Amino acid sequence: MYPLPEGFYAPRNQWYIAAWTSEVQHQPMERWILNEPVALYRKQDGTPVALHGRCPHRHFPLGKSRVVGDAIECGYHGITFDASGQCIKIQTQSAIPSSGNIKSYPIVEKWRWLWIWMGDPAAADESLIPDHDELQFSNPDYTFVSDIYYPVPGRYMLMHDNLLDLSHLGYLHQSTIASGGVCDVPEKRTEGPGWMESERVVPETDCPPYFSPFFNYNGKVDRTFTLRYLLPCLHAGHDSFAVATSAGADAGRPLGTLRVYHAVTPGTMNTAHYFFAFGRNFGQGNVEFDRQMETGIRVTLDEDMSATREIESMIAALGHAPKELLVRSDAHCVQGRRTIERMIAAERASTPSGRTTEQAL
Amino acid sequence: MYPLPEGFYAPRNQWYIAAWTSEVQHQPMERWILNEPVALYRKQDGTPVALHGRCPHRHFPLGKSRVVGDAIECGYHGITFDASGQCIKIQTQSAIPSSGNIKSYPIVEKWRWLWIWMGDPAAADESLIPDHDELQFSNPDYTFVSDIYYPVPGRYMLMHDNLLDLSHLGYLHQSTIASGGVCDVPEKRTEGPGWMESERVVPETDCPPYFSPFFNYNGKVDRTFTLRYLLPCLHAGHDSFAVATSAGADAGRPLGTLRVYHAVTPGTMNTAHYFFAFGRNFGQGNVEFDRQMETGIRVTLDEDMSATREIESMIAALGHAPKELLVRSDAHCVQGRRTIERMIAAERASTPSGRTTEQAL
Amino acid sequence: MYPLPEGFYAPRNQWYIAAWTSEVQHQPMERWILNEPVALYRKQDGTPVALHGRCPHRHFPLGKSRVVGDAIECGYHGITFDASGQCIKIQTQSAIPSSGNIKSYPIVEKWRWLWIWMGDPAAADESLIPDHDELQFSNPDYTFVSDIYYPVPGRYMLMHDNLLDLSHLGYLHQSTIASGGVCDVPEKRTEGPGWMESERVVPETDCPPYFSPFFNYNGKVDRTFTLRYLLPCLHAGHDSFAVATSAGADAGRPLGTLRVYHAVTPGTMNTAHYFFAFGRNFGQGNVEFDRQMETGIRVTLDEDMSATREIESMIAALGHAPKELLVRSDAHCVQGRRTIERMIAAERASTPSGRTTEQAL
Repeated sequence: MYPLPEGFYAPRNQWYIAAWTSEVQHQPMERWILNEPVALYRKQDGTPVALHGRCPHRHFPLGKSRVVGDAIECGYHGITFDASGQCIKIQTQSAIPSSGNIKSYPIVEKWRWLWIWMGDPAAADESLIPDHDELQFSNPDYTFVSDIYYPVPGRYMLMHDNLLDLSHLGYLHQSTIASGGVCDVPEKRTEGPGWMESERVVPETDCPPYFSPFFNYNGKVDRTFTLRYLLPCLHAGHDSFAVATSAGADAGRPLGTLRVYHAVTPGTMNTAHYFFAFGRNFGQGNVEFDRQMETGIRVTLDEDMSATREIESMIAALGHAPKELLVRSDAHCVQGRRTIERMIAAERASTPSGRTTEQAL
Repeated sequence: MYPLPEGFYAPRNQWYIAAWTSEVQHQPMERWILNEPVALYRKQDGTPVALHGRCPHRHFPLGKSRVVGDAIECGYHGITFDASGQCIKIQTQSAIPSSGNIKSYPIVEKWRWLWIWMGDPAAADESLIPDHDELQFSNPDYTFVSDIYYPVPGRYMLMHDNLLDLSHLGYLHQSTIASGGVCDVPEKRTEGPGWMESERVVPETDCPPYFSPFFNYNGKVDRTFTLRYLLPCLHAGHDSFAVATSAGADAGRPLGTLRVYHAVTPGTMNTAHYFFAFGRNFGQGNVEFDRQMETGIRVTLDEDMSATREIESMIAALGHAPKELLVRSDAHCVQGRRTIERMIAAERASTPSGRTTEQAL
Repeated sequence: MYPLPEGFYAPRNQWYIAAWTSEVQHQPMERWILNEPVALYRKQDGTPVALHGRCPHRHFPLGKSRVVGDAIECGYHGITFDASGQCIKIQTQSAIPSSGNIKSYPIVEKWRWLWIWMGDPAAADESLIPDHDELQFSNPDYTFVSDIYYPVPGRYMLMHDNLLDLSHLGYLHQSTIASGGVCDVPEKRTEGPGWMESERVVPETDCPPYFSPFFNYNGKVDRTFTLRYLLPCLHAGHDSFAVATSAGADAGRPLGTLRVYHAVTPGTMNTAHYFFAFGRNFGQGNVEFDRQMETGIRVTLDEDMSATREIESMIAALGHAPKELLVRSDAHCVQGRRTIERMIAAERASTPSGRTTEQAL
């Protein structure tokens, strides 16, 4: 489906972010992921569990049911599944058929996120999960404003399109975060296995006024903005400020760095999940500054959600994939789409039945 | 459609409950039944009338129109139909074509309900309507809390599934009516022509505390719970309490009986109508107790509506009939589905054109 | 689609009313017309502009974007189009491909309305726009209550059906404007190139009491009601009062005339736009009377919107075009449908590709 070719939705043999660790508690929650209902909960020892979210008996949502001990008990007739998805109780009979078992998804807790693997469990290799230390997401020198979640009112790829083409900053966000000509400078693109990165350097620009007090600096800065897409789910980057080259002896002295983390997980065919956080290595412990930054970023993210809703509505009104004009700044975004498309095609090639998500349900 | 085979919806040559008698007045109301709009009203002498609810001229809903005398006058251009469906007035012409006539459905008032026959009128035999006296629904020794109506946010068969498998009492209703281990004892199933019944006997159980004052009894009771499905629409049963066998000389003395009546009528393809009443032969005239029982049962019925909504949503999200796990306690429910399926198949076999409801509109 | 044959929607090579002139300002608005999104705005000199409302890059609605100077800048990535639809700015590149251009629709401001031509621009001949002077819509002797807009909750043809068959006045509007037996007299129908008219004369009827003070007359009147359909969009007519023939010497003296203007423009497949105004050549300058007339007519128009919503819902519930009963008073309405149908068929015959609106998007 647009912006991928017809019949292409999302790769399954991948780690996706299911939730912030803070979102999942002992009692279950429902979240649709890759167009499947998933029940997320924690065992008594805190271990996260992800089970298929539909009771195979009468299709009641397990994510709206009840956890008893470490097992989940369907809210309708009490059929109970342990954390591995094995059916362990049917109220009115002692024999438990194996056909009563439900799918359990590999789920891994890494610092602030729960990562889920919706595809073939045998292929779920934890080492494929992005390294949080490398991403600085576990760096104690940073203060994080985190655990921001948005339900996305549109198909997940619209959010990747958004994040892979920051030329929208000066327009969609012109009354919020547009600043400093970040998108007026050339984009330098690099890539490697499983990632692709965009970098923009803005030399000799004014230090953003609200950072100055923390940097204890008012002059020109060299600003470097990067965003790396770790396919298929996470975008992580930084916005770094250093004393401008023109400043002579002090030139190049680092002033401070903001780190940004965006994750997008497919929900249903026309919705997604969005997880946002940022961190900074300056102004630590300033709770009021935290609050201001969160308030500010939420206005910006509302703009992204609104654009996504409008585009999803427009596509729905058309009733078919729209033709589109490709421009130079789409190069990065198109590369992302192609990579996702190749991941899906590769999965299909390796699955004899070639079954789709929908057929699998 | 699920849980029936693809293309099976509902038998038409059957009596269905259209409304509580108290719901239908002189001015009309609209109710969709078997996926047809029906206009229900009463003639000046109180006789109920059921006409096809769409004006054949411009499709305005007759159920949202106006009754004049004993006839219904379309709210758009005033085309008027008598209680037999015959077109009797077209404002701008004196000749009335017979093609202006609309379908009139046989409708019969039996004590508290209006019964409608949506199929072949020639086959509408009133003697097929369940006998209210036999059901005790007209027994003056009982106090009734009645005329409870719920629009069902899901296909009608989900409600029959619900009523034919009471093993959900302890789970869906665990915070409301779950009690006394009614579902922990074996279900005894019997059947006859046009009905199937489930009975459960719970010996030596505690008398429900809120009944004790009325029974003037605090000891152990033998409790018998039955629910008879009078296909395709009505479930009627009782919950009877007697002094427990262990009580010696007094054993078996009847303490009191609750009677329950559930009726389910198909609405549109994905909605239904639910009618509920209960009666008791103890605590008569206690209006406060009536109020408490109605309040209590409404919380329970809300749970049933909520489960139905969840399941209907889940099926809609899947986009196809879900595979399902059958368990032992489904025997009664599966028998109900099969009987409904056979009724539909028999109707098709006897209709040369084999036309469906949808084609008939 | 109903009430036209399957696959027939609306003629495109026609002038349609896009908006009241007062609705369109410098900053843009979105309006769907003939199932296409249109961005409407004004240049700095006030000239109206109508552009295709979907940015060809990422499908963001241009009608929810921003006008800068005389050009429209997409609210997402800033791609900019001049008033002719030519793409004039892509933020990140200097070369502008012609594939970036969007459709500009001929739009003409005629007194109170903006007229748009959604079809082949080469065929857009301004002289085809109804003559406002002839319609008295620019007559300074009349006081107008104008600029009334309603979004229609149903397909546009339902509104033409409504306006071409005034026999609904005494029923749908029986508590509002039904009066004076306008529909109890024969309808005289005439037609000419591009129009069809219905006239009704009611002789010797009472003067409407709320007009009497302005007419300074209390006796019998001869009342003439006409409504001319200037296809495909506008209905204009008058309701004229003269001293009744029976009044002797004074007979035939004109007392006053109300003029009514209804316009209907297709929106999406299942919605439309409705524009209403009326004028009178009596009671000028009476602001309180203006207010009463507007309040009164809004109640009546609400009834039309409500009927349209009900019928659209009924058709949706049926899932297919309903069969319908044709009656004598439908002659005018059926003629209107046939004419619209012929206009569509003629367009198709003259378009080699025979492409439909949907394919064109």
